[in-house]
Amino acid sequence: MGWNAERARRSASLSDMTDRPTPTGLDALFSPRAVAVIGASREPHTIGREILENLIAAGFQGPIFPVNPKAAWVNSLKCYPSVTAIPDPIDLAVIVVPFPHVAGVLRECGEKGIGGAVIISNGFKEVGGEGIAREEELLEIAAEFGIRLIGPNCMGILNTDPAIALNASFAKARPTHGTVGFMSQSGALGETILNVAEELALGLAQFVSLGNMADVDGLDLLEAWGKNPDIKLIMMYLEQLTDPHRFLEIASKVTRHKPVVVVKAGRSPQGARAVASHTGSLAGSDVGRFHLFEQCGVLRAERMEELFDIGRLLVSQPLPRGNRVGIVTNSGGPGILATDALIASGLQVPPLSQRTKDALRMRVPSGASLNNPVDLTAGASSAQFRMAIEALLADPLIDILMVVFISPIMLNATEVAEYIIQGAGVTEKPVLTVFMNERQGESAVKKLQEAGIPNYRFPESAARSVSSLVWYADYLGQPAGKYAHFPFDAAAIKTQLALAGEDGWLPFDAAMDVLELCGIPTVQSRFLIDGDAPPPSGSYPVVLKTISPKLQHKSDAGGVVVGISDADSWHAALSAMHGRLAAIGLLRADYRILEQEQVQKGEEIIIGVSREESLGHLIMFGLGGTTVEVLKDVVFRLQPLTDLEAARMIREIAGLPLLTGFRGRIPSDLDFAEELLLRISALLDLCPEIIEMDLNPFILTDSGATSRAVDVRLRVDVG
Amino acid sequence: MGWNAERARRSASLSDMTDRPTPTGLDALFSPRAVAVIGASREPHTIGREILENLIAAGFQGPIFPVNPKAAWVNSLKCYPSVTAIPDPIDLAVIVVPFPHVAGVLRECGEKGIGGAVIISNGFKEVGGEGIAREEELLEIAAEFGIRLIGPNCMGILNTDPAIALNASFAKARPTHGTVGFMSQSGALGETILNVAEELALGLAQFVSLGNMADVDGLDLLEAWGKNPDIKLIMMYLEQLTDPHRFLEIASKVTRHKPVVVVKAGRSPQGARAVASHTGSLAGSDVGRFHLFEQCGVLRAERMEELFDIGRLLVSQPLPRGNRVGIVTNSGGPGILATDALIASGLQVPPLSQRTKDALRMRVPSGASLNNPVDLTAGASSAQFRMAIEALLADPLIDILMVVFISPIMLNATEVAEYIIQGAGVTEKPVLTVFMNERQGESAVKKLQEAGIPNYRFPESAARSVSSLVWYADYLGQPAGKYAHFPFDAAAIKTQLALAGEDGWLPFDAAMDVLELCGIPTVQSRFLIDGDAPPPSGSYPVVLKTISPKLQHKSDAGGVVVGISDADSWHAALSAMHGRLAAIGLLRADYRILEQEQVQKGEEIIIGVSREESLGHLIMFGLGGTTVEVLKDVVFRLQPLTDLEAARMIREIAGLPLLTGFRGRIPSDLDFAEELLLRISALLDLCPEIIEMDLNPFILTDSGATSRAVDVRLRVDVG
Repeated sequence: MGWNAERARRSASLSDMTDRPTPTGLDALFSPRAVAVIGASREPHTIGREILENLIAAGFQGPIFPVNPKAAWVNSLKCYPSVTAIPDPIDLAVIVVPFPHVAGVLRECGEKGIGGAVIISNGFKEVGGEGIAREEELLEIAAEFGIRLIGPNCMGILNTDPAIALNASFAKARPTHGTVGFMSQSGALGETILNVAEELALGLAQFVSLGNMADVDGLDLLEAWGKNPDIKLIMMYLEQLTDPHRFLEIASKVTRHKPVVVVKAGRSPQGARAVASHTGSLAGSDVGRFHLFEQCGVLRAERMEELFDIGRLLVSQPLPRGNRVGIVTNSGGPGILATDALIASGLQVPPLSQRTKDALRMRVPSGASLNNPVDLTAGASSAQFRMAIEALLADPLIDILMVVFISPIMLNATEVAEYIIQGAGVTEKPVLTVFMNERQGESAVKKLQEAGIPNYRFPESAARSVSSLVWYADYLGQPAGKYAHFPFDAAAIKTQLALAGEDGWLPFDAAMDVLELCGIPTVQSRFLIDGDAPPPSGSYPVVLKTISPKLQHKSDAGGVVVGISDADSWHAALSAMHGRLAAIGLLRADYRILEQEQVQKGEEIIIGVSREESLGHLIMFGLGGTTVEVLKDVVFRLQPLTDLEAARMIREIAGLPLLTGFRGRIPSDLDFAEELLLRISALLDLCPEIIEMDLNPFILTDSGATSRAVDVRLRVDVG
Repeated sequence: MGWNAERARRSASLSDMTDRPTPTGLDALFSPRAVAVIGASREPHTIGREILENLIAAGFQGPIFPVNPKAAWVNSLKCYPSVTAIPDPIDLAVIVVPFPHVAGVLRECGEKGIGGAVIISNGFKEVGGEGIAREEELLEIAAEFGIRLIGPNCMGILNTDPAIALNASFAKARPTHGTVGFMSQSGALGETILNVAEELALGLAQFVSLGNMADVDGLDLLEAWGKNPDIKLIMMYLEQLTDPHRFLEIASKVTRHKPVVVVKAGRSPQGARAVASHTGSLAGSDVGRFHLFEQCGVLRAERMEELFDIGRLLVSQPLPRGNRVGIVTNSGGPGILATDALIASGLQVPPLSQRTKDALRMRVPSGASLNNPVDLTAGASSAQFRMAIEALLADPLIDILMVVFISPIMLNATEVAEYIIQGAGVTEKPVLTVFMNERQGESAVKKLQEAGIPNYRFPESAARSVSSLVWYADYLGQPAGKYAHFPFDAAAIKTQLALAGEDGWLPFDAAMDVLELCGIPTVQSRFLIDGDAPPPSGSYPVVLKTISPKLQHKSDAGGVVVGISDADSWHAALSAMHGRLAAIGLLRADYRILEQEQVQKGEEIIIGVSREESLGHLIMFGLGGTTVEVLKDVVFRLQPLTDLEAARMIREIAGLPLLTGFRGRIPSDLDFAEELLLRISALLDLCPEIIEMDLNPFILTDSGATSRAVDVRLRVDVG
């Protein structure tokens, strides 16, 4: 295949690999000078044999040493009884022996000075029990000798660099050499991934089956590939995100330089979750994952097919300057399907410039449509296709060109493909094709693939891929966002958090104090003790609220009085309330009365926090009030928030018009709302022990100066 | 291919087709005894030649007569100068001559007594202008002679019945004989459809490229195919729905007997629409289309790939009794992807029964997982696969079996495929597979296809298809729904509608009267004339409202007073209101005062109507009030509504809990709300001239007896 041929061409000019200095770190794994296969075997249908054969077939640029005490040679290669018996230096060991022997073999590798090991063998952490201990033992040995490990329980690794040509895996596929780094948390899926990559001519630079990730994990690779100039696109199949914060940190850096596309598998939590806050009950962990990727510029594919669809476009085409797609087609139906799908993905299919229309009008078949899509009809010649392609690529109102083509009898598909390739060669705009009749157009599609123009069988997947390309271009066009820092009094906050009860909940006053310490304004509040005097004049109007575990909906039971405007009404309201509560059977010991200043009219919002297992803190923003509580108009982000993310969150709620002056309302102070979110984010930085938190409601007015938190619930992790 | 071979086998036993009686109606098109190709040609790369070759290659079971005045023979067949020169009876003419000649040729067909014509030629309605007149001429000739037409501007038709073996198209593909009826409004896409059907071994019974649908349209075919016992599944690619009501009527009947799957292309309305009602502005025409399909049991595919994915499952597998999917796999990752996708589609992947688990436990590889998905791990033998397949098919807690398989080195994929085929042979449950490595498993996948077990490359598309299967089974499990009839006084209603102004809007009183005439309760209302007396005691409380085109938001301007409890407060409120209005500069002539009874506390709902071009009336239901207006919590259905659809609409809004007793609220009378929707539907039946209508708000209480329409806007079509 591609990389082998290239290697053959180059190998004459390569200096002997063994002259290279000893590779260190991950380089021992991916750029070894010599490889040992420990557990190599002559038996057909064994992994030990497949790996050896793959290494040889790929034309590894260095010597390969099989190790097997029971054989003198394997595949015409001299076989050694142990790795220490090999006289030459070895950088990479591929270990395929049964699990009871792996630790011993790895120790020998260490003694031999081998820097990298790919452990294919299974029977470790993935089986639980003793397997966990066995895996820890491997890590200890690796640490002792400084060996970097891939696996155990993996399918192996590939590096298609012609100067290395390493296929240390038991996959049968032979991917083309290219610029994609692909990692998979599923070994079994790895085989399929390599197959599909080969079929679609998606050229790979490196492939890694991550296995149990005892040592090298996906983030180590992401970081390394981020810095590797031979890798232009990183594709990942993930099952677990072990450290979302590290992911956020590393991926944010990598995506500034190259695109990252992820498929994330992971069963939705099926069991019940014990949560007491609104935020907790609204937060599904999938919500968080989604935003995790979005926050750091990672493209998320919804399904495996999409991963490849998006990847093929990203790796081959430049980023567009806008979202305006021009379509050239010779068939109405597929043109409509493409337009539908593009518009559904938020892209534009705008009218062409007058100049383009004029240029086209003279030279297209009669009956052709000059609107976008440009439908040349079935009667179009390949010369007319060429002209339309050139005209659209030259149109300043078009950012992206999609050619949707059905092979009619009278038209040479290969010729059309060649014109597309010519057009793409002289433009900075991304070009992609939908040649729908692959049967007839096989050679045309092959030509396009070889020229790096991605072809799609149906317009919908092409459209979906374009939307990812545009999203990523948009992401890169935006500033990175900044984290805010606030001079919180950490000691004072921790003192308040220490007041949490056995269940972790903070008393109301303490929770309100935490807010104040974070610079978040709260309403003046006090719990009344019998005999307390009314507030002094100047403090009115105030509100009295009954707080009782026995009274769920206090307003309904007459447990709230608002608009108390002076001392007399205060006395009257208080005694009337006691009376009503007594009438419904509440004892005086059952409840407390909270007195609060009455907040100026504003919109009820809710800000919440929920700490999710394996995700960290989610921060929620939404509208408050009963109606909205039912309609769940809330958005989530993973902590920490940048100023840009905070601003985006607020603008993403459906009810935004209620905060921006709808029907003559006074517009709320959204800058202040952003600041609130950033203050909460900073609090969580300081106090990760916070498990859940609701500011519900927070009354947001037209100014931060009069906005107030009215109620807060806050729970910390008490072990 | 399949049907040709079958034909060859059968042809000996077939009686001579020309002995059959003359076919009539659509049968002349699809079951002709003899075919004439008018415009047959010897020129390569012409449609006239391709069609003739296709007819011959498919082995048409009858004589084929080329017609071309310039040739004595074509493709070794004697050629005739005109169709009237053919001595034998002809049932079907395929017309490929340029458009100026089509009418003349069609007339000759009529004179010859030909019952059906497929007109391939273009240059008719699709080009506008004179083309429209040309197409009308064709229709007149067809009517004169009783010819049924397919086209013009189409790709042709196929009937793979071995007793007919008709390929009257210029498509190159050779689909397998089967039980699918496929129609396409796009000719160009037809070629791709036939290609893909062939690749996926989706057996077709008939295929029709509809073209301009001058005579036979998609609904004629839908109706005919619905009655055709050889067709088990109908698949459609649609661009326009010319008569949604006829679609609803015909499809509702057909889907009771066989599934119908549709891809609907159609550009979203990009232009601005002039609408004045809430309902009109909320109704996108796509909303209506979506529910059109859902209302009549038609499955809608979102994209072309999905159309085939769903079709393959529906045509080959029985309907499930429930939505519980059992997964057997030899690989964790793909198992997770499948589970994710199934759960995201609303299906269940439940735990297996204890008995199944016990049966499995003894015989699976160590490390296998007995939860659902059953992960047999890469070490599983094909015998273990067999056992797991049998156990899951026997489990009463599982309705559907999905086998997700990755070919490992040591396992024979074909053997596993055989066990799946055996299992599927003795169960009533649907079975489908995801063999991911098509390369290695090619022969296994072929075996599965031949046995009618659909295979998918990736688990996500398999899951999506299962959800369609389950949706259709659910649909069939529900009663059909009934239309309600109400004894409306049609004359009285029409009298009120006749009061519409030039712009079509009804005066407030007339609109309220229409509601009352439909049995929809409205609040007592009167417009006050200066000097009017207050309402008599017993009528309180009442509300006063300012009605003025100059006062958009009357509450904000003090133009509304509620809770007026006696004559004195009435006088006071009225004069204060006049004062406030004068203060903001309103003249007495600028406004009127509406007095209304104050409705008992209830929930504000909105019921609306919008007549959409090419769709008919949409009926909307949703929550009222400002917040909800912003959040757009509304649902739509196409008129007419059945009782079941009305009930479903109400239950689909996100804010349903607000109507069902959330937080101690009094539950609203939802039966009455259903009745309201049915009454509106019946009104539209009677008065299709209604263009838009909003009951906003309608106050829905805990009883129909106290629920009231407070405001209504109603506009009729005044030409």
